Parts: sequence; structure tokens; C-alpha cells
Amino acid sequence: MPEKETDMNDINMKKRIPPLLAGLRDHLENGIIPFWMERALDKEFGGYMTNFNENGAALAMPEKYLNTQVRLLWWFSRLLRAYPARKDFRKMADAGADFIIKYFWDAQNGGWFWKVKRDGTGIDDGKVVYGQSFAIYAFSEYFRATGERRALEYASRTFDLLQKYAADTLHGGYYENLEKDWTVAPGGFCAGDRKGLDTHMHLMEAFTNLYAASGEEIHRRKLLEIIDLIMLRMVDLETGCGRNQFDLEFHPIPAIAIRRTWNAERAGDAPATPTDTTSYGHNVELAWLMRDAIETAKGSIEPYLEKIRRLLSHAVEHGVDWEFGGIYRDGTSKGGPLIMDKEFWQHSEVLVGFLDGVELFGEERYLDAFENVWNFVKCHMIVKATGEWRVLLERKGHPIDSNVGNEWKVSYHTGRSMLECISRLERLNH
Amino acid sequence: MPEKETDMNDINMKKRIPPLLAGLRDHLENGIIPFWMERALDKEFGGYMTNFNENGAALAMPEKYLNTQVRLLWWFSRLLRAYPARKDFRKMADAGADFIIKYFWDAQNGGWFWKVKRDGTGIDDGKVVYGQSFAIYAFSEYFRATGERRALEYASRTFDLLQKYAADTLHGGYYENLEKDWTVAPGGFCAGDRKGLDTHMHLMEAFTNLYAASGEEIHRRKLLEIIDLIMLRMVDLETGCGRNQFDLEFHPIPAIAIRRTWNAERAGDAPATPTDTTSYGHNVELAWLMRDAIETAKGSIEPYLEKIRRLLSHAVEHGVDWEFGGIYRDGTSKGGPLIMDKEFWQHSEVLVGFLDGVELFGEERYLDAFENVWNFVKCHMIVKATGEWRVLLERKGHPIDSNVGNEWKVSYHTGRSMLECISRLERLNH
Repeated sequence: MPEKETDMNDINMKKRIPPLLAGLRDHLENGIIPFWMERALDKEFGGYMTNFNENGAALAMPEKYLNTQVRLLWWFSRLLRAYPARKDFRKMADAGADFIIKYFWDAQNGGWFWKVKRDGTGIDDGKVVYGQSFAIYAFSEYFRATGERRALEYASRTFDLLQKYAADTLHGGYYENLEKDWTVAPGGFCAGDRKGLDTHMHLMEAFTNLYAASGEEIHRRKLLEIIDLIMLRMVDLETGCGRNQFDLEFHPIPAIAIRRTWNAERAGDAPATPTDTTSYGHNVELAWLMRDAIETAKGSIEPYLEKIRRLLSHAVEHGVDWEFGGIYRDGTSKGGPLIMDKEFWQHSEVLVGFLDGVELFGEERYLDAFENVWNFVKCHMIVKATGEWRVLLERKGHPIDSNVGNEWKVSYHTGRSMLECISRLERLNH
Repeated sequence: MPEKETDMNDINMKKRIPPLLAGLRDHLENGIIPFWMERALDKEFGGYMTNFNENGAALAMPEKYLNTQVRLLWWFSRLLRAYPARKDFRKMADAGADFIIKYFWDAQNGGWFWKVKRDGTGIDDGKVVYGQSFAIYAFSEYFRATGERRALEYASRTFDLLQKYAADTLHGGYYENLEKDWTVAPGGFCAGDRKGLDTHMHLMEAFTNLYAASGEEIHRRKLLEIIDLIMLRMVDLETGCGRNQFDLEFHPIPAIAIRRTWNAERAGDAPATPTDTTSYGHNVELAWLMRDAIETAKGSIEPYLEKIRRLLSHAVEHGVDWEFGGIYRDGTSKGGPLIMDKEFWQHSEVLVGFLDGVELFGEERYLDAFENVWNFVKCHMIVKATGEWRVLLERKGHPIDSNVGNEWKVSYHTGRSMLECISRLERLNH
């Protein structure tokens, strides 16, 4: 693994940027964007289609999940902000927003239901904070792209409801799993007695976009609080790795599969895994979301820089597969990988974070890591004919799950990665 | 000081109850109630008069404070609940509520202003959480007494605003000092960087009454959280004394005078006093408010009993002036008194708490302490001719401040003490 330190003006690094930039632009504009523009609208019931095989053919979709519905709303809104002339993006965003508000909003208790049937009929009316956070993220983006007041109102109301019903005024942070009426869910599999890095990180991401949309001081204050909460309670000072799950007092506890998460749905009740499991993908995603959060809040990055460096560096040193390419799915905080599969979202997120490593620390090894992961993605993950990424591969790139869309995967990770990487590569290219 | 342990059925204790009960009833019905019924209404501008000398003559009152306005609203509402046939209580409550809503409610940002001129013109539009807590307490009581929906709505909206703007999602608990727009006040004298037992205790008291009024689960949840927060972070495990002031992370810090508190207003910028200062009055008030909070929330008192016992026992052993009677104003957590003055509110509150000591632990020393304090109050504090209590006496009972009402003192402590003590004495009398 290359260890050479360099600075941003290094000529060798500079000349590696333009071809990468061209490759990512091409994949975004001729791959991911058309893939979802052609397929995402549910012409029968409204809202979005999410399930597609690698040929781009729609699969049976009995259920619509809050999470992927609002992620696609976010996606078309975000595209509209990047390409304001594209009225077709606006139409896609509007169509999703109408369906989501009509069928997911709980007019009685406030907040968003977790799951409906394809036609909008209710299935699961639980209040999952993870899902609420993406609703804030999406409706903030929809407002930023369109100026629609009702979008900001829904985002702000969701924020207010979280402050009232999800915040833990005893220990800080947020309860993550609640029922329809906002009572806290039972413990164990329902996880009313747990807090986690994943949900808190996505709350931070949501508050970042909400503050960018509203400019309201209270949104900034809660953003600053959750930035510090994550850094203080959820990141291991010694290793610089994020920890997975905690009790309500933020003691790290062994991770279990939790109701209404992807891991639980694909694996059933998984046995407890060791406490020191860490996700390279989450760590690097946290690093770049943290930088974005701090910059949006107009805070100083200085006090956080060492932790960001450790999050990135641990992943480069232990998570990147320098032999076959890509990033391992999970590892131990002490070092090496535990699960060597290659999953789409970790690849999306580390691409962004590794470019932050180049920008913040000027080290070429982050560009090496970026190129390694991107080449693996191009070779094995992206389905050339249709332009989206497969869900899961084994270590060497052989598909385990070849589908490119499901109830948990749309273009939020893959497409956002391209947009975020392109803006970083453009800056590095100057 | 008597140390004898006994039980509730002890015949000696039993026979001491009836004369005490008669004395307190007489003072309530022929002293405190008529005092405020005859004087509290501001016939010129609406709202309440608060400033009276010991002869019951109204003093100049250039300002109306949120705190004492809502405490009188609480008082007349509480009386109405105790004596439902008394329409005159209802009239007094209505008159106060109208003025308070009209002049103190911030229609733009929500919440209650701190101070207005006698005619309602604004003076200080800060958002003091201490004051907000008493608004919740009062409007909850007004609803309980009258069934007026708008009263419960104001109480609930205030609660919601505190969850959004005052809760600290990083460390738990609440910011206590905020500006008109709910931004956190600066540090130091403005105390945006401090948390304290006083405010958190009164938030607990407010949430208790709000839950009793609304029956809403979220009010109960936040009540349970603040009960545990106070016990976990603000009460010293070793001595059982409450601590005064804390930084935002709940480290105890030396107490200072804080803007918009009585101590600051009467003493100016007081120098920092040692960290281990403890208030016997607050400790015992906390003990009985805690019991009431737990019982209202239908929690089990068992896990809290030892701390309640220590709070009461420390005050009986170190705070009661067994020589001249009454309770000292302030002491050290290690033991003896620092300031030997006798102040009205500590006397009101320890009377209630000492009867809780009799009820919970069956120890006669609490009845001895009660009788000691009550005799001192009767002899020196109560102005016989008019029926209210003087503000402040020196140790032996000589008046320092002879007034019986001011911007900080109405009948909330004195009158409530009589009501609460009477209900306890009635139970002990069975």
C-alpha cells in the first residue's frame, strides 16, 4: 500500500484527476440519471418504483418503504438543483412528493409511516427515526430545488416532532424506534432501548440539509449538538472507528439485528456480533458527512480534523482490498476485515470520503484508494448495459445479489456519490 | 435533637396531629386566602398586584414579573380545585389569565416574556426557563380547575417549545436562559452556559402538573426523564444534598448570582460562593416534589427512597435551628449552616417535606422538626393582623425584610405549604 505523503499541487496527482472526472460524469449522466428517469415513476399508483434486476426490468414490488420513496424524492430534487433547466426532474420530484405526503404522513400523530403497499394502503405505521431523518433530508432538498413552502414545512414539522418525541432529555441523543403514537418501542429486537451510529449520523445529515434550506438558528444548534454527540459518544478515541450500537446511556454494546433495518430483513434474527465490529463504509461516510455538516454550520473544522483523519486512515489501511480492489463490508476496530463481501453503499460512500482525504490532508494514498475502489466498481459493480450498481458481490467481484434496485437501494448512495465526487474532483482539478 | 425512631401508629405522634391541623387550617382560611382575595386583583390594569407591606398596604409596583403573575394564577386555580363552589376564586383566576395571555405571550416566537410594566407594556422579553416552567404549572392548574381548553393548550405549547428550544440534545437536561427568539443567552451573568437544580426542579414540578392535567404519555416520559436526571446528575450521592449550579455537562461549579434571579436582584453581582453550598429549603422541597412527581407518574418510589431519606435527614440534622427555631437559609453539604437568616420560602417547603418524612419513614424527629419550624413561623414570620408571611428574618426572628409580598413572593410557597400540609396531616390523622 502506498504511504507516500504529498501535497495537493503534486503534479502526478493533478494529472490523474481529469480522466477520473470524465469517467464519473459519464457514468452519472449516461448511467444513473437515465436509469431512474426511465423507470422510477410508478405510473399505476404514483410514487416510485424501487425494485429492478440487473437488466433494468421491474421486479414485483408489493411494498413501498418510506426510506427509498423519500430517497428518490431527494434524488430528483437534488438533480433539479444541479440542473435547474430540467423540468423533467421537477415532474419526477413532484410526483413522488404528492404520493409520499398523501400516504406516508400521519395526519393524526404527525410524522411518517414506515411502510405502505404499492397502492398506498398502510402496512407498518411505526415511527422509525432513521426514516424520519431521510424525510427531513428529502423535503429540505425538495424545498431547496423548488422553493415549495409546504416542503420546508413538512421538513420542519418532522424536526419539531423529533425534538418533542425522540430526543432523550436524560442522556442526550435520540430514541430511534417508536410506535405510531410516538411511544418508545420495546427493547430487544424492537430496539427502543438502543441508540446507534447509523441513525444519529443520518440525523446529522438531515439537520445539515434542513439548516441549509431554512437558515434557522435552532436547526443549526441541533446540528452542532449532534456533531459533538457523535464525536464524543460514538467514535472510539483510540482507534478512530465508529461504534455500532449503544445502550441509552451510550455504553457500547454488542450489535444485534434490529426490526425495520435492512440487516434484519435480509438475515433474520442474526446472532450478536462482537462489540468492536466497525463498518469501514460508515466510518468514511461519517467523515465526509461530518465535514459537510461542520462547513454548512459555519463551524471550525480544526477541532474535528484529527478524528476525521483517523476515520479515513483506518479505512485506507484496513478496509481497502489492495489485492482485488474495493472495500470490505465489515471489520474489527483493531484492524483487518471480518466480512470480505463488497456491497454497493460502502463503495459509494468511501469514494466521496477518500477525496475528502485528498482535499483535507493532501495525501496521495487517498487518491490511490479512490482509484482502486472506483476501478473495482466500474469493473464488477456497475451493470454497463443499464447503468446502475449491483447490490452485493463476493470479494473478487462475483455477484451475490445482482439486482440494482430494491426496497432499500435506489440512487441515493450511488448517484449522490457521483455528484459529490464530481464536485471534489472539479475543485482538485483547478 | 430527638433521634428516637418510631412508627406512624405511635400514640404520642397521633395525638399531636389534630391541633396542628386546626392551626394550619385556620391560617389558610382566615389568613392567606383572604389576604390575596382582598388585594391581588389589579383593578386599574388587570393582572395581579404582588407588592405589600406587613400591614397589607399595596406598595408601588412598577413591574409585573411572569413568575409571580402565573404563581397567583396557579394559586386561585388551585383554590378553586380545592373549593369548587367558590366562584370568586374562578373570577380571580380568569382575570389573571386574561392579562397574562394578553401581555406575556410572545405571539411571534411563542413562549412567555419575563417582565412587563404594570400596564402590560413590555420591559424584558427574555425567555427564562424558570418562568416558562411556572407558566406550565399555572396553566395546567387553571385547566384542572376550570376545564378551559385554551389553558391546557398554552401549557402544552410551552412544553413543546421547551422541548424544541431549551432541551440540550448533547448532554441532556435543559438550557435555562434564552433570549426572546430562543437563542441561548451568553455565558457568565446571563448563564447560558449553566444548568441548575432550581430550574430543573421546577421543570419537574411543572411536568408533574401538566401530566396530571393532560394524561399525555409524552408528558409522563419527560417527567420520568427529568426525575432521573436530577437524581443522577444534581444530587450528591454521598451527602444526599442537592448541588446548586453546573456547567452544561453537569460538572458542579461554584454558584454565582445569575441575571433574572431573585438572588442577583437583591444582592447585585455576588461573588462566587463555594461549590458545596447547599440549600436546606431546596433539598427538602426537592424531596417532596420528587415524591409527588413519582406518584403522579405512577412510578415506584422504592428506587428513590434512600435519596429522599438523605435529603430530608440532612436538613433535619443540620438545617433546623433547634435552639431558636426555624430553618437556616444556606449551609454546606458537609454539615452546618453558612447563612443563619430565616427566609419565608424555605420554611414553607420544609414544612411539607418534613411531613413526608413522617409518612414515608415514620420517624418522630420529622414531626418534631415540623413543629419546630411551624412554631417559629407562627411566632415570627406570620403577620397576625393581615395573615401573610414576612420575607426575611434574622436568626432569632427579628425582621430584616418585613414586607409580605413582592415581585418574587406571593402565596405560591406559603399558601401551597398550608394546602399540602393539611392533606398530609389529614392522612396522618386517620
